[in-house]
Amino acid sequence: MSKIKITGLTVSDVRFPTSQEHHGSDAMHTDPDYSAAYVVLETDAALKGYGLTFTVGRGTEIVVCAVEALSGLVIGKTLEEIVNDFRGFYRILTSDGQMRWIGPEKGVIHLATAAVLNAVWDLWARAEGKPLWKLLVDMDPDLLIKCIDFRYISDALTEREALDILMKAREGKQQREEQMLKDGYPAYTTSCAWLGYSDQQLTQLCSTALAEGWTRFKVKVGADLEDDIRRCRLIRQMIGPDKTLMIDANQRWDVSEAVAWVTKLAEFRPLWIEEPTSPDDILGHATISKCHNRVMFKQFLQASALQFVQIDSCRVGSVNENLAILLMACKFNVPVCPHAGGVGLCELVQHLILFDYISVSGSLQNRMCEYVDHLHEHFRSPTVIRQACYIPPKDPGFSCEMLEESVQKYQFPNGEVWKTTLLQKGQ
Amino acid sequence: MSKIKITGLTVSDVRFPTSQEHHGSDAMHTDPDYSAAYVVLETDAALKGYGLTFTVGRGTEIVVCAVEALSGLVIGKTLEEIVNDFRGFYRILTSDGQMRWIGPEKGVIHLATAAVLNAVWDLWARAEGKPLWKLLVDMDPDLLIKCIDFRYISDALTEREALDILMKAREGKQQREEQMLKDGYPAYTTSCAWLGYSDQQLTQLCSTALAEGWTRFKVKVGADLEDDIRRCRLIRQMIGPDKTLMIDANQRWDVSEAVAWVTKLAEFRPLWIEEPTSPDDILGHATISKCHNRVMFKQFLQASALQFVQIDSCRVGSVNENLAILLMACKFNVPVCPHAGGVGLCELVQHLILFDYISVSGSLQNRMCEYVDHLHEHFRSPTVIRQACYIPPKDPGFSCEMLEESVQKYQFPNGEVWKTTLLQKGQ
Repeated sequence: MSKIKITGLTVSDVRFPTSQEHHGSDAMHTDPDYSAAYVVLETDAALKGYGLTFTVGRGTEIVVCAVEALSGLVIGKTLEEIVNDFRGFYRILTSDGQMRWIGPEKGVIHLATAAVLNAVWDLWARAEGKPLWKLLVDMDPDLLIKCIDFRYISDALTEREALDILMKAREGKQQREEQMLKDGYPAYTTSCAWLGYSDQQLTQLCSTALAEGWTRFKVKVGADLEDDIRRCRLIRQMIGPDKTLMIDANQRWDVSEAVAWVTKLAEFRPLWIEEPTSPDDILGHATISKCHNRVMFKQFLQASALQFVQIDSCRVGSVNENLAILLMACKFNVPVCPHAGGVGLCELVQHLILFDYISVSGSLQNRMCEYVDHLHEHFRSPTVIRQACYIPPKDPGFSCEMLEESVQKYQFPNGEVWKTTLLQKGQ
Repeated sequence: MSKIKITGLTVSDVRFPTSQEHHGSDAMHTDPDYSAAYVVLETDAALKGYGLTFTVGRGTEIVVCAVEALSGLVIGKTLEEIVNDFRGFYRILTSDGQMRWIGPEKGVIHLATAAVLNAVWDLWARAEGKPLWKLLVDMDPDLLIKCIDFRYISDALTEREALDILMKAREGKQQREEQMLKDGYPAYTTSCAWLGYSDQQLTQLCSTALAEGWTRFKVKVGADLEDDIRRCRLIRQMIGPDKTLMIDANQRWDVSEAVAWVTKLAEFRPLWIEEPTSPDDILGHATISKCHNRVMFKQFLQASALQFVQIDSCRVGSVNENLAILLMACKFNVPVCPHAGGVGLCELVQHLILFDYISVSGSLQNRMCEYVDHLHEHFRSPTVIRQACYIPPKDPGFSCEMLEESVQKYQFPNGEVWKTTLLQKGQ
């Protein structure tokens, strides 16, 4: 594999008009058009690498522009050069002496970094002929550690500690892998209760989900308290007292507002309150968190300001940074429950959580991976869910190759779908 | 003024090849080309509004792309609509249901927001025929408060508290304004000790600065400890024991590294250690901080993790967000020492610190504003420094209108300067 050279990079602005049906709507994102900056790495071999980062419509063109700005740092490199010093390559992407200014490691430039690195990891896994989770599970712990940039986190996790965690988790690894292949990884669903759905939709989707074997449900809240009470009551009544309910406010509240609101919703016994306030507010005591980089995760853990860690395959710096976060979560003994949904997030993150169970945490207690039943039909190797569990992917790679036809059709603004939509809007 | 309508927005990628002379070099940004995403608002009146955000070269095109994405939210609005509900307008820019995803309020999209809002404030000040600092100083406290978005900070500062601070500071306001017009606001210089300068350059620049009346000096450190010791010793010897020295590591260190390094430099008695580690690391106890939004500043203040607040006119959301930060700093009794330099940062931030002294803090104790003697010649109303003090600007606006000729000449990549430079590099 090693001599494969990356000869080109293309990036596409792909948008799905999900806002038309209120799919994905929440208290802060009322009209998302689920989108992706979609990256394809060309090589001098028969292989390509596919990666993406998830966005919600407007602004995707800015991430595309950022990917283009990073492309010069990737094109011309061999896969061998990259993976032999992946930490160094990660540093090159995140610490370019000029581009670093417009981050660092946050917002647009970090989303772009994730898209590019996801494609590099996909290429690596394909070159090895393995699905990404298996590449990670089989990888020598020393090599895994060398993929991680410990800058700014060494006060919370040293290389030595990280290695110890991986060495210790070798026990029982084989059994856990077999268990995953047989039963899959437990999931929860967010598909039933988007904020923009009517009560009738909620009822119908929830009863379908129950019939399919789902036992854990997330409800979007935060726009109107009376609405939230009614919707949570409805869901709790339908699922009964023993199943699990979570709520997600998507950063809608100030700190005191969050406390007051959540008190009113306590009777529905949510397992967690997701993103009650600003994602930057460590001291505001978010109870669960999606963070924009490992430095933020580190502090949430140090401050005991979260009870669940939500990793994201597209907001932080790909596998490299997620490895750091999984290892820190393990050290601080906090369960990881990945964020997914959107476009391709389920496809990507399943690899990381499988790796976490098999090679890091070794536990399923209080752990589950989000699942949203959207847009999987656009992927060549879509997620497989069986009895509310993710079944480990078998195809080589990181599972985020999109169908060429979908990329063409949903390209913004010139794909067939958008030409029609924009024409109808008279734009 | 009120009926002025914004009819268009242009944005330029302007870059100065400062890396050729190592101006601006530090431990993390070794070769910055000081740059700006430069915004001009066109109106249906004779006035225009000028704004910018500062960048350091590559990646400026991404910020330009983000400004273009925001332009639709500005064009077509009247100045009256905007300033009558400036909080609402701020929220529109920072909380667009789709673009919010690629921030929120951080990185590229927040830099772009700053550029656009700086231009809006410039237009407002010009419409009133006042320099921006004077517009703020004369503004009714109620109206000032209505420019601030209190979302996510109300647990640290309420509207009522903010108003009380402004009302209380009315006492002595007139005298402070007169004092500023007469003496100016104290500054410190960073021009003498960039990391890439030779010892000979250091010596020469420092002796010139002393002759000009400078008494406060900042030294860039963090790349090599022996170098740092030698350079700090040199500067301390030249300026003597009574003048002030600060050091800036530009995020180079991990937490434990910072402690060890700074211990070695303690003998040179730096007043502060700037950005010892990641700007996201609240718990890493930075002693001074440039943050990316008011939520980060809030926590640094709540956690007593900084001793000086460094506001920035281009990284946070313009005057609106800086008002929030100045008021929080006042409540927590922490001195504000603005970050400046770059392109236009001195021009912009002088207005904010003048307002802070006259209308908020009322104190000069432990306070000073950074000054770097670069690139002022490209501005229509450049800063005026007298005896190491900023003299309050008199021209209407926010002082960041660039000379049309400079904008043309340094436009990237098609301006005259870059055509030649790129040609020489054979690119």
